[in-house]
Amino acid sequence: MNVLEIITRKKNGGSLSYDELKFVFMGYLEKKIPDYQMSALLMAITINGMNMSETLSLTDIFIRSGEVYDYTGKIDYVVDKHSTGGVGDSTTLIVGPLAASLGLHMAKMSGRGLGITGGTIDKLESIPNFNVLPSPEFFYNQVKTLGFAISAQTPNLVPLDKVIYNLRDVTGTTESIPLIASSIMSKKIAAGATNILIDIKVGSGALIKTREDAKTLSKWLIAIGEAYKRNVKTIISDMDTPLSCAVGNALEVAEAINVLHGKRCPLFDASVEIVANLLSMAKGLSLEDATKETIKAIDSGSALKKFYEFVSFQGGELGKLHIAPNVIPVKAKISGTIESVDALGAAKLAGKLGASRMTLDDKIDYSVGILLHVGVGDTVEKDDLLMELFVNGDLPELKNADFSFINIV
Amino acid sequence: MNVLEIITRKKNGGSLSYDELKFVFMGYLEKKIPDYQMSALLMAITINGMNMSETLSLTDIFIRSGEVYDYTGKIDYVVDKHSTGGVGDSTTLIVGPLAASLGLHMAKMSGRGLGITGGTIDKLESIPNFNVLPSPEFFYNQVKTLGFAISAQTPNLVPLDKVIYNLRDVTGTTESIPLIASSIMSKKIAAGATNILIDIKVGSGALIKTREDAKTLSKWLIAIGEAYKRNVKTIISDMDTPLSCAVGNALEVAEAINVLHGKRCPLFDASVEIVANLLSMAKGLSLEDATKETIKAIDSGSALKKFYEFVSFQGGELGKLHIAPNVIPVKAKISGTIESVDALGAAKLAGKLGASRMTLDDKIDYSVGILLHVGVGDTVEKDDLLMELFVNGDLPELKNADFSFINIV
Repeated sequence: MNVLEIITRKKNGGSLSYDELKFVFMGYLEKKIPDYQMSALLMAITINGMNMSETLSLTDIFIRSGEVYDYTGKIDYVVDKHSTGGVGDSTTLIVGPLAASLGLHMAKMSGRGLGITGGTIDKLESIPNFNVLPSPEFFYNQVKTLGFAISAQTPNLVPLDKVIYNLRDVTGTTESIPLIASSIMSKKIAAGATNILIDIKVGSGALIKTREDAKTLSKWLIAIGEAYKRNVKTIISDMDTPLSCAVGNALEVAEAINVLHGKRCPLFDASVEIVANLLSMAKGLSLEDATKETIKAIDSGSALKKFYEFVSFQGGELGKLHIAPNVIPVKAKISGTIESVDALGAAKLAGKLGASRMTLDDKIDYSVGILLHVGVGDTVEKDDLLMELFVNGDLPELKNADFSFINIV
Repeated sequence: MNVLEIITRKKNGGSLSYDELKFVFMGYLEKKIPDYQMSALLMAITINGMNMSETLSLTDIFIRSGEVYDYTGKIDYVVDKHSTGGVGDSTTLIVGPLAASLGLHMAKMSGRGLGITGGTIDKLESIPNFNVLPSPEFFYNQVKTLGFAISAQTPNLVPLDKVIYNLRDVTGTTESIPLIASSIMSKKIAAGATNILIDIKVGSGALIKTREDAKTLSKWLIAIGEAYKRNVKTIISDMDTPLSCAVGNALEVAEAINVLHGKRCPLFDASVEIVANLLSMAKGLSLEDATKETIKAIDSGSALKKFYEFVSFQGGELGKLHIAPNVIPVKAKISGTIESVDALGAAKLAGKLGASRMTLDDKIDYSVGILLHVGVGDTVEKDDLLMELFVNGDLPELKNADFSFINIV
């Protein structure tokens, strides 16, 4: 097979066979195909798309690139959730312990930052000594006994997704429905979940920009799930505004703890919705009853207890969580009402502070970020605090930073 | 500026400013932008296009990336020609000496193989000891005294084109009209030609597949020329069939000598057309008179003499030209008429023999190739010789090679 012919066919809008996709993608994993050819093909796929048959092929190639986990007969109620990303989306940090406190089991394989936002693993790595790569035995036992464990993609779980995810992250090819669908479903299927909830975020700060794209992605996720006999449900939620008031890795961990303490906010509502759906799917409860049970698990403190146990199991020392010491207040220049808080703008500003990566070699500064003090609909007076920036050292370029993502009218 | 934002804008069909294009392209030349990001942007440009303003910007960025030559007041009648590629297109080897024998001056900067075909420099490198990189002084003096000199792109002439050309060659991004236009015109303008003929090849074996694309490219080439006050003329010629009966580097050199000896064939006609147009443009002759002069220069032997002088000036030893010793005849399986000889099919077969490169590190085997013994319209009997393959050693995969590009009906 000839890689140039394959790239050229996709460039011209043609479709690729299972063997052709395998030749290029597995060739890239095995370092036979150079990254500049892989990124050219990824861009052609991102612009020209893939049909369902190609997407099923690619998902299968992804799954077979590594180990496949199967908990059948060993652990019951294996659930998983995935969010298609978004700004300030720290739901995994809340959903995992919350689901575990309700008798579900979540064997979570998670990712690093995609595009402008930090991933769940980046967030957990902001906790000193947190082990994001527990051994398979340790991981299995933690899922079985504690109900929740998390691991960065190990070299054994969908290794192909790991390298492709990293390359997409730095080549402008994150916003592709077939690539997103293959990436998500291959990991969920290989990780062994039987009940899967996918939270599709829509909005300026999310990978998926329109409801139409979200519905398309939803159909594809469900179709892939059916092909592998997995129970898949999707929820589509708006994401023009950051879900959390914290944007930045350590700051988002701190905010997750606030929510597990019972703080009512959009992040609380989103987390409860996800867990209630999983509980309803796995145990056959009505969504209404499942929602009540879920809120009870937070208010009783059992979800927070699970969170502390989970961090402690994986070696993390929450007492040492480091948040950047230099706090810069940003104040309202005019009085008025907050018309919008643009998630993408917030993420870009956090990125400028160092909270996300732009090339494969960039290092994230876990301690920096933004704490928003206002939400849409709030009224503010001139000089009221809009947000605080947490930075390390002097950042002279901040003088010209763009704070207009908070729009006051 | 943020490279991901720039790639993403082009991916979404937007347009880029001069500064944005400069940031990414010059950043790539300066090794600040990695190749996987450059290839992603090239693919987005190839699929989504560039407008005229972007194309003029990119051409200017290309030109300014290196030295600019200006022969005004020093050498008269500076002409140049370019062919947009194609299979078995060895016209430069004929046109250069032929033009020089008519008092024109051609300071030729040429390229290596793009995609499936070998470039002119590859062809000349098949001549042992031929120096494709003469010093600037040597080159200038040779143009002035001999009338024709050739150089591979030196590090000083449009260095940006060199790295982009190499990357496009291996990423399926050769077939982009704006990228082709910028690449061609930046080199012609920087190399100092005032009268420029561009031979746009159209057909299955050419970079440009349709007459419509050729007309678009033609308009863009002329518009870029006008912006720099250069006299640009284009001819559009069909290229479904190989122009030469030789496909492969050393074989094409040998065939060029046959034509300079006066062999009448499509390659003779094409070369005469190009030189006659240049002569007519530069000296203000009618095309008819220019054509007569041009044919006379071949038939008198003065063009051939120039060719030998040219090769000798640049150190080449034609006596040592090496053609692969293992000759495999391919015979007709049926009797009939040759309906078509597909140029792309011939190029692919030559590529399989080793005559072109697939990745940046591939080495070309100059000695291999194909000699076609039939042309469209010829009648053949079963077992008549269709072509000879010149190969080194045993090539067991040739047993299953596809010879159907010669179609007998």
